[in-house]
Amino acid sequence: MENQCGNSRIAGCSFSVHPMSDQFVSYIKGSLQEVDTSNVWMKTDDVTTTVRGRMEHVFDVTKAILLHIAKTDVHVAFQGTFSIGCPGDSSGDVYMEETTERLNEKDTSDIQQYSAAKFSLYPMGGGDYMDTIYSQIEAMKEKGVTVSPAHYSTRLEGDTNAIFTGLEDVFRETENSGSSHTVMTVTISANSPTHKEKQS
Amino acid sequence: MENQCGNSRIAGCSFSVHPMSDQFVSYIKGSLQEVDTSNVWMKTDDVTTTVRGRMEHVFDVTKAILLHIAKTDVHVAFQGTFSIGCPGDSSGDVYMEETTERLNEKDTSDIQQYSAAKFSLYPMGGGDYMDTIYSQIEAMKEKGVTVSPAHYSTRLEGDTNAIFTGLEDVFRETENSGSSHTVMTVTISANSPTHKEKQS
Ligand SMILES: [Ca+2]
Repeated sequence: MENQCGNSRIAGCSFSVHPMSDQFVSYIKGSLQEVDTSNVWMKTDDVTTTVRGRMEHVFDVTKAILLHIAKTDVHVAFQGTFSIGCPGDSSGDVYMEETTERLNEKDTSDIQQYSAAKFSLYPMGGGDYMDTIYSQIEAMKEKGVTVSPAHYSTRLEGDTNAIFTGLEDVFRETENSGSSHTVMTVTISANSPTHKEKQS
Repeated sequence: MENQCGNSRIAGCSFSVHPMSDQFVSYIKGSLQEVDTSNVWMKTDDVTTTVRGRMEHVFDVTKAILLHIAKTDVHVAFQGTFSIGCPGDSSGDVYMEETTERLNEKDTSDIQQYSAAKFSLYPMGGGDYMDTIYSQIEAMKEKGVTVSPAHYSTRLEGDTNAIFTGLEDVFRETENSGSSHTVMTVTISANSPTHKEKQS
């Protein structure tokens, strides 16, 4: 448990991406060759990959890694814990690029990919977040994402770009509502055998 | 976001297990044939599997599902969010078997399997949990688990049975310390290509 706290609002995501294939390594390497990670700090070990930086870059990079694998039509699962604030953060391994330009948006915005997801928000630092969460979930519905309750989470179905936009918005607005430490867990499944009739 | 609260202390885990193989379905089905799930409520959809019941049965079943896949030597990743308490729980789909006998222990206790894991504890309902967490982490070290800090989490390495014992103990003692709603995220990797020299 790390308890150092920096001053800047570095966001991060500890994630894993699992192409369900004997060739999982080449799927991941292939995706990483297409993803521009120059605006974030990123490190992979045997359990997870950690990406840190400005919130928009963290979402941009994680979405791009998933989409560049999913576009090959392999069944792929993504699991990530997005985090901002203290405790749980550390001041080390910081990389806060000043630009807000999303380096991967141009290559991912055209990828139409159905996925199903579950997310849970844990605002642990106070704030007036319940109204925020409900209004952001309503906004997801207006973007074409199907929302339903699930055990311990909220289920989302629809276009992966729309799902990521919704996830980033609800995470950002929860932090803006005053939560000093916000955690969001996300699990996404793309190209599941059970999705065949819904896929684009 | 579900906000119903029951009275009983139903634990649950929303998890995914990812054998990195073209035959991922048969690995999962093969494991499930060996796991006794009769003491829990369990349901799988395209994103996650949810298991609910007494805390010991939730850990017993999730560990068994992972170990029966890992013992085949396939590279497998497990990701689970363990949860107990409100909000986030619902009173539906309850199954609280009275017995505390762990139905899968006899078949899993002999499986020696190295794994690496990361876990994060989110005690969201108060309680005096920091001392509890630190003492439970010390207890893990005494059981032979290697513990080190990681971004947003604590890293564990060692025998999978010892890791699950440590995870269950820290989860249980955090709840016992007075946390009315406790969430723990766990990511485990077994038979990773980078583990070859450490595997048993
Ligand atoms: Ca597709």
